[in-house]
Amino acid sequence: MERKQEVSKAVIQRLPRYYRNICELQAEGVQRISSRTLAERMGLTASQIRQDLNCFGGFGQQGYGYNVDKLREELGAILGLRAGRTAILLGAGNLGRALLKNFDFAAAGFTLLCAFDADPSLVGKRFGGHEVRHATELYDFMEQNEPDVAVLTIPRGDAPSIARGLVDRGIHGLWNFTGEDLHLEGLGVPVENVHLSDSLMTLCHLIM
Amino acid sequence: MERKQEVSKAVIQRLPRYYRNICELQAEGVQRISSRTLAERMGLTASQIRQDLNCFGGFGQQGYGYNVDKLREELGAILGLRAGRTAILLGAGNLGRALLKNFDFAAAGFTLLCAFDADPSLVGKRFGGHEVRHATELYDFMEQNEPDVAVLTIPRGDAPSIARGLVDRGIHGLWNFTGEDLHLEGLGVPVENVHLSDSLMTLCHLIM
Repeated sequence: MERKQEVSKAVIQRLPRYYRNICELQAEGVQRISSRTLAERMGLTASQIRQDLNCFGGFGQQGYGYNVDKLREELGAILGLRAGRTAILLGAGNLGRALLKNFDFAAAGFTLLCAFDADPSLVGKRFGGHEVRHATELYDFMEQNEPDVAVLTIPRGDAPSIARGLVDRGIHGLWNFTGEDLHLEGLGVPVENVHLSDSLMTLCHLIM
Repeated sequence: MERKQEVSKAVIQRLPRYYRNICELQAEGVQRISSRTLAERMGLTASQIRQDLNCFGGFGQQGYGYNVDKLREELGAILGLRAGRTAILLGAGNLGRALLKNFDFAAAGFTLLCAFDADPSLVGKRFGGHEVRHATELYDFMEQNEPDVAVLTIPRGDAPSIARGLVDRGIHGLWNFTGEDLHLEGLGVPVENVHLSDSLMTLCHLIM
C-alpha cells in the first residue's frame, strides 16, 4: 500500500503511542480492532485515529477495522524499528540499573550489548543479564562492536565531553538521560533527551 | 507586566525547557542574557526565543536582553511552580529508588513526603533521605497528609486500580512511570505519562 501523503511531524510524534497500544493488543491476542474500540482504549476520538492512520494508506476497512498484525508491521516500519540494532549504556547507577533490569530494549529492536561504569565495585556485575565493564574499555569495545546507540545515564558534568568522544568514535544516536545539553548540533547525530523534570513541570501546570 | 495574548499550547510545552535553562543560568550567576546567547545555548534561533517569550509580555529589552531572575520568576508562575506542594512515591524498586535518590523534586516546588512499597524488606529503609513505608499505611497517610501528587513507579498490572484508589482519596495529579494507561479520563485528575520507550522509538526514527 502506498502512502497517501507526506506524514506530518505531529502524526509521527503520536506514532510510538499507537505502536505501543497495537503491540499490547497483539499480545492480548486481538486480531482486528475498530477505530472506535482503539479510540476508547487510547482516550482519543475515532475520527482522530482514522485521520492519523489514513496518512499511511488504507489498512483499515469499513466495517472490519484494522488488522492488528499488519498495522504493527506498518507502524514499526515507519518508526524505523528493526531488529539487529545495538546499544551500550554508560553509567550503571540507580537509573542505569533501572533501565538494565526493566527496560525492554528488544521491543524497539535493540540488543543491549553491555554497560560501562568507572566504579570498580560495579565492574563485572550483571543487571538484567547485562554485564558492567570498566569505562576504560569503552573505546576498544566500540571499535570492535560498533554499537549504534549509546544510552547516557552518567552524572551531569562530564556528559558533553563523553558524548563528543562517542560521536568521534562513530555512535549513530544518543539517548540522553543526564538532563544536560550535549551541544552536538550540526554533527548529524540525533540526540533524544529525556528530561523527567519537564514532565513534572507539565503536571504542575495541569494541576494549577 | 500584562500578558499580550493567550499563550498557545506549543509555547507552553516549550516552557519547561526555557525554565530549566534559565535556572541553570541563574545558578551560574548570570544576571542578564541576550536572546542570541540564549538561542545558542538552547539550539534555537533568537527570533524563535523572542517570539515565544514575547507571549508573556516584554521582559526582554532591546540592547539589554532578559533579566534572568525576573524571567525565572515569570516562567515559574506561568508553569504553576510554587513551593509547598507535596508528593508521595509508590513503588521503591530500581526506578523508584533512582528518583528518590537523584531527582530534584524541590526544583519543581515539591516536597516528597515518603515512599510506599509492599515489600517488607524495603520498609523502614531510606533512599535520598526519603523513608519507605509499608503499602498498607498508604490510605491512612493520605488522609492525614493530603499529598498533592503521587509518583507511580509500581510494576504494571495493578496500576489502574491503584490509581483509581488514589483519585478516590483526593490525589490531584499522577506522574505515571508504569507505562500503563491508567484510564482516569473524565475524572478531572491530570496524568502525566512518562513512556521511555516512546522516546527510544523517536530516536529510532531519527537514525533511520
